[in-house]
Amino acid sequence: MAATGKDNKTIIVFSGDLDKAMAAFIIANGAASMGKKVTMFFTFWGLSILRKPDAVQVKKSPMDRIFGWMLPRGAGALKLSQMNMLGMGTKMMRAVMKDKNVSSLADLIASAQKAGIEIIACQMTMDVMGLRMEELIEGVEAGGVGYYLGKAEDSNLNLFI
Amino acid sequence: MAATGKDNKTIIVFSGDLDKAMAAFIIANGAASMGKKVTMFFTFWGLSILRKPDAVQVKKSPMDRIFGWMLPRGAGALKLSQMNMLGMGTKMMRAVMKDKNVSSLADLIASAQKAGIEIIACQMTMDVMGLRMEELIEGVEAGGVGYYLGKAEDSNLNLFI
Amino acid sequence: MAATGKDNKTIIVFSGDLDKAMAAFIIANGAASMGKKVTMFFTFWGLSILRKPDAVQVKKSPMDRIFGWMLPRGAGALKLSQMNMLGMGTKMMRAVMKDKNVSSLADLIASAQKAGIEIIACQMTMDVMGLRMEELIEGVEAGGVGYYLGKAEDSNLNLFI
Repeated sequence: MAATGKDNKTIIVFSGDLDKAMAAFIIANGAASMGKKVTMFFTFWGLSILRKPDAVQVKKSPMDRIFGWMLPRGAGALKLSQMNMLGMGTKMMRAVMKDKNVSSLADLIASAQKAGIEIIACQMTMDVMGLRMEELIEGVEAGGVGYYLGKAEDSNLNLFI
Repeated sequence: MAATGKDNKTIIVFSGDLDKAMAAFIIANGAASMGKKVTMFFTFWGLSILRKPDAVQVKKSPMDRIFGWMLPRGAGALKLSQMNMLGMGTKMMRAVMKDKNVSSLADLIASAQKAGIEIIACQMTMDVMGLRMEELIEGVEAGGVGYYLGKAEDSNLNLFI
Repeated sequence: MAATGKDNKTIIVFSGDLDKAMAAFIIANGAASMGKKVTMFFTFWGLSILRKPDAVQVKKSPMDRIFGWMLPRGAGALKLSQMNMLGMGTKMMRAVMKDKNVSSLADLIASAQKAGIEIIACQMTMDVMGLRMEELIEGVEAGGVGYYLGKAEDSNLNLFI
């Protein structure tokens, strides 16, 4: 433990792919279990990971509504970055992981929140995609690039996934 | 500002996707606005981001010419990493961003250059793809992996995008 | 060499794409040539990079066997992340690189091993994909996220590729 307290961790989650999201949370949870403070910053496609599975009633412009339809709704709706094969590969991977006792993405997210990992939704992406906080899972806060950079300043591990 | 001066930032821009390029410049510009020195190192597909939009008259081997045709020419020609949908999704995203007052990639690049962010084109990639400095936008310099590593040594935020 | 010994480097290789694998090894070899200790942590699709080119006789469940068939077998079987064009683009790129005296991925891996770069295969991915150590090239060791995080703690450059 450095005297300077500069050993926090940050992860920018840009990707909305199932496999990359899992990698991000496995690293984040590992660091938290070693007593480190972790901030995850979800931006662009990564915001899909934080969506609630069910539609939320909010007023939206037609364009925002289209984004809402097109972006996956949360952990259970994501696809692999490779070998998706019209969803078959993703289904197979989820089944294999369950069979081999690997935590699901939903479980990894729940663990992260329990461990006090800070989960930030990129404000700019929220605006562009017309997403509202009430469409995201509980415990998420909005923030901008300045907030992320401040956190990175106190960290010795900063990843872009 | 650390006494050691080790709080610079580096970003390797490997991807030539519009969305990832935007993310890279938004982070870089944010750090520059906080008074930090930033080096962006463009390699592989990322070099497309730095191409001039119009063809430049240079002598090339047939193979280099093919690369020249296939790689996008600059910020205005890039596509989204997801939801490109034969260009329709990218067009839609550009329109939405403009509508919501998000700076275009071209503007972000101009801001980066104005802020003194160092923009390096990977020499090896230039050689492989047969690109010449006069085909890239003004203000770019060529460099190798050793140069990048030297810059990273003085930085506390190093991303690969 | 810093007195604190905190200037090691780590690279997580998540991707199994030829171009990203090359980028990872070029950075790693560059750092090693500057006298730095480097750890590369191969996870998810990145494990393909470490497979032996020929099938290895091991007992496997039917599902593990399917993964074995689908994942590329080593450096010579990888594809570009872009412009693969049913393999033609990848072939062209390999030929151009050879022509321009850029080291092949196989050569880069050999150099990395000669330079003492630590090559770790993610234990969880091995389990999920049913891969065995004897299916990977010599000199690789298995490790988990905790091992990676320990190495990152002593490093000032940590990339996710």
